[in-house]
Amino acid sequence: MTGTAILAAEDLLKAQSWRYATKKFDPSRKIPAETWSALEQSLILTPSSYGLQPWKFVVVTDPDLKAKLRPASWNQAQVEDCSHHLVFLAKENISEADLDHFLARTAEVRGQTVESLEGFKGYMMGDLVKGSRSTAIGEWAARQVYIALGSFMTSAALLGVDTCPMEGLQPAKYDEILGLAGTGYRTIVACPAGYRAAEDKYATAPKVRFPASELIDRR
Amino acid sequence: MTGTAILAAEDLLKAQSWRYATKKFDPSRKIPAETWSALEQSLILTPSSYGLQPWKFVVVTDPDLKAKLRPASWNQAQVEDCSHHLVFLAKENISEADLDHFLARTAEVRGQTVESLEGFKGYMMGDLVKGSRSTAIGEWAARQVYIALGSFMTSAALLGVDTCPMEGLQPAKYDEILGLAGTGYRTIVACPAGYRAAEDKYATAPKVRFPASELIDRR
Repeated sequence: MTGTAILAAEDLLKAQSWRYATKKFDPSRKIPAETWSALEQSLILTPSSYGLQPWKFVVVTDPDLKAKLRPASWNQAQVEDCSHHLVFLAKENISEADLDHFLARTAEVRGQTVESLEGFKGYMMGDLVKGSRSTAIGEWAARQVYIALGSFMTSAALLGVDTCPMEGLQPAKYDEILGLAGTGYRTIVACPAGYRAAEDKYATAPKVRFPASELIDRR
Repeated sequence: MTGTAILAAEDLLKAQSWRYATKKFDPSRKIPAETWSALEQSLILTPSSYGLQPWKFVVVTDPDLKAKLRPASWNQAQVEDCSHHLVFLAKENISEADLDHFLARTAEVRGQTVESLEGFKGYMMGDLVKGSRSTAIGEWAARQVYIALGSFMTSAALLGVDTCPMEGLQPAKYDEILGLAGTGYRTIVACPAGYRAAEDKYATAPKVRFPASELIDRR
């Protein structure tokens, strides 16, 4: 199949216009298991550079853990009131062992031998492990995480799920509370998900965007 | 309206499974104007931190300009063979003038006075212009761009449009070719869009993802 739209363009834009950074979630409404399961699957399908997936997604639904994370999130109520508090982690580093793990998975999924992927490995080694990108590899991984964040917010909106992207948090405190020391992963950003409270006045505020003439440069 | 899905979960996942990093575009197939227009609108609707939109999207369709950009893209053929070559730019810096520009737009769209937004301005000043984030503000803006990249790839797939996220390019060369010196914007990443060629064997290769048990950590 090629080039068949699954969705009408107007419906895509309707969902993206409906989406807003939810300030107040309805704490009584939980995302149904099948909807959340699809969103997890959607996260797993997120594209990443080389397909390396230098990330992990922590899904917090436990009220006690949410309560612990809230003070590390500038005390924002969304952390506790949302249905699922999603925390995006990135790999701190990319090692040869990480590449081998990825290539073993590639070989498994595609029915290839690891040996046949040596050239691909050399290429990634030269770029990520020993090359120009290796000096800022943590930031490279963080950028990948934002691909997942962007795709997640659009995907959630399409399924009628509200979100609130949250950079306002203390990553080191999150790392401590989530027990990430020694795991090789660190907290980058969070995104509570759930359903807006009826009284959230931000839901109806007109969306502020610069005009297309300022944002789109056609050549 | 709250919590109404615009799309069935299985259709979202179908689109995201259909998507792949297109290696070979069909150079004869162009994205219809109305479809591309919707994707531009979708880019404009992308969420960003504070809603600041520290980005610009360059849409390259001119064959001569594509030909110039290709050598700066590790000579990847997608740059020329795609329908629309999309280049993501980020602001190099965030100044008080940038905040004022944004707040003027906010006041205009929401029918508020700029004065009523002083508190919001002070908050952003303290964070982005003078605060902890100001020392790495270029990277902060680059991360925002990846939100747009992530949302764009999912949106395009839903409209049946193929994409290829492209970090493999020389940003400084792109900046030069696009004439960005002095504009305050710099090249971060690109994403050619169009339609896959029938003979692209990567289209049918099984997607490599780590199992959910490695990527999703439920608490």
